[in-house]
Amino acid sequence: MSEVFAAMELGGTKTVVALGDASGAVLEEHRFPTTTPEETLGVALEWWRERAAFQKVGIASFGPIRLDRTREDFGTFLTTPKLAWQQFSLVRFFQDRLPGVSIVLDTDVQAALLAEMDRGAARGMSDAFYVTVGTGIGAGVCCGGNLVHGTLHPEMGHLLVRRHPHDDFAGVCPYHGDCWEGLASGPAIEKRWGKPAHLLAADHAAWDMQAWYLAQGLYAACTMVSPQCLILGGGVSQAAGLHAKVSALLDACSAGYVEEIGARLVAPALGQQAGIIGALLLAANR
Amino acid sequence: MSEVFAAMELGGTKTVVALGDASGAVLEEHRFPTTTPEETLGVALEWWRERAAFQKVGIASFGPIRLDRTREDFGTFLTTPKLAWQQFSLVRFFQDRLPGVSIVLDTDVQAALLAEMDRGAARGMSDAFYVTVGTGIGAGVCCGGNLVHGTLHPEMGHLLVRRHPHDDFAGVCPYHGDCWEGLASGPAIEKRWGKPAHLLAADHAAWDMQAWYLAQGLYAACTMVSPQCLILGGGVSQAAGLHAKVSALLDACSAGYVEEIGARLVAPALGQQAGIIGALLLAANR
Repeated sequence: MSEVFAAMELGGTKTVVALGDASGAVLEEHRFPTTTPEETLGVALEWWRERAAFQKVGIASFGPIRLDRTREDFGTFLTTPKLAWQQFSLVRFFQDRLPGVSIVLDTDVQAALLAEMDRGAARGMSDAFYVTVGTGIGAGVCCGGNLVHGTLHPEMGHLLVRRHPHDDFAGVCPYHGDCWEGLASGPAIEKRWGKPAHLLAADHAAWDMQAWYLAQGLYAACTMVSPQCLILGGGVSQAAGLHAKVSALLDACSAGYVEEIGARLVAPALGQQAGIIGALLLAANR
Repeated sequence: MSEVFAAMELGGTKTVVALGDASGAVLEEHRFPTTTPEETLGVALEWWRERAAFQKVGIASFGPIRLDRTREDFGTFLTTPKLAWQQFSLVRFFQDRLPGVSIVLDTDVQAALLAEMDRGAARGMSDAFYVTVGTGIGAGVCCGGNLVHGTLHPEMGHLLVRRHPHDDFAGVCPYHGDCWEGLASGPAIEKRWGKPAHLLAADHAAWDMQAWYLAQGLYAACTMVSPQCLILGGGVSQAAGLHAKVSALLDACSAGYVEEIGARLVAPALGQQAGIIGALLLAANR
């Protein structure tokens, strides 16, 4: 029998746990709301233990979280508005309760990117960029076949962007006000226009403005790491016609300098499953 | 006797050729003005041939230039305002005249970053960012020990930045007008203020504005690839007090979100030698 791996996608509002094989195939999974650290991780632990013996856990987590294994605070959440999780050590929780089991950790977006590169929208590519737009804006970056971490991990939601000429909204980021996430996340759209993104009609002015912000951040990624493919995902990215608008504005940002960047924009191929598949691939060291 | 390597730093206005060893030590070098492709590269070829037999050439070139070895146009200049070089194949020129010699090519800034990581300001680091501000703005990016290329190479001079509130200058970039390079390169400073950067007093308002633009681009790099160190070099970066201003503004951009980023700003340690040392390291496959 082939080895079974445990995986968890820990999101801001929901958590997914799964068991799967080395290929990233999910054998069984369970979704439940994210609450306190002890409760949420306790559910995960019990669910895995009731079902299988395993030697490796892959975790795709929201951030910011310390990914550097050489640091004492590896696996600890840093400054986050989710106060119950701030300074909580995800890795220590599992190490204490799963002695001998190795834990492989990355961000939820990086894990999703890994899955899309393994079998999805960026299959076979070495350089790809994934941005997910929902309650925040998160980015995953892969250069030359390696997920990018640096001293922490990509935090591109906090990129400073140019304001749309017709936008005087202050923004919702508690740190920066009008950074990328502050102007273009789901909560920003809801606060600016008075209703959530999914209730705004496809011809609402909100979408031109949204496309303008999304194109700017994606263009910034192109100037820095020149990805073969730009994956735009997350709840807010699914509005009808938005991808076409962003693609056209990417070419407008580039103004002929960077080759055919609008054409690099794609939708995720794995949808909601990308995170948990990515977590399994992390566990299996893919 | 140890192997001798040939190296060239091909800049927009000057070219450096050298012979050196596998450690990147320059044995002999020669500097001359960059003119037409045939003339400039002809001088390089003759200078090397008169002095040594070699099997590898490392080239650090201005861009944009195709670095992907799998493409037919590997080593060819793309859209550049230096019209004599546009579509010229640097690699083919040398391959035709140096049969059997292997050519390793990267951009001038990436080569400078490689040298700074090998023995300079970013020694021993795995993740570093180099920006050089002169006649243009060029960036080098290294993630997890690997220089970043993607489909081309970093082109971060063309990042779109927020305008300084007191800046109504149109910018000098022929593609974008007011991109990063369009607002903060040497020619932009000269056109905005009516005199070249080196003639502007240290207390001139130009420097606060310049620091503001530089901090924005460096902060963008931090949000995307989270480097351990930010190297700010090039002629325009040497103004008295500029580094301190940029460092303070980096912390202001971050607003407490990204840890201690102002402290990551450093000056290059190898000065004018970084490019040619980097070219030697490329040849020696370091």
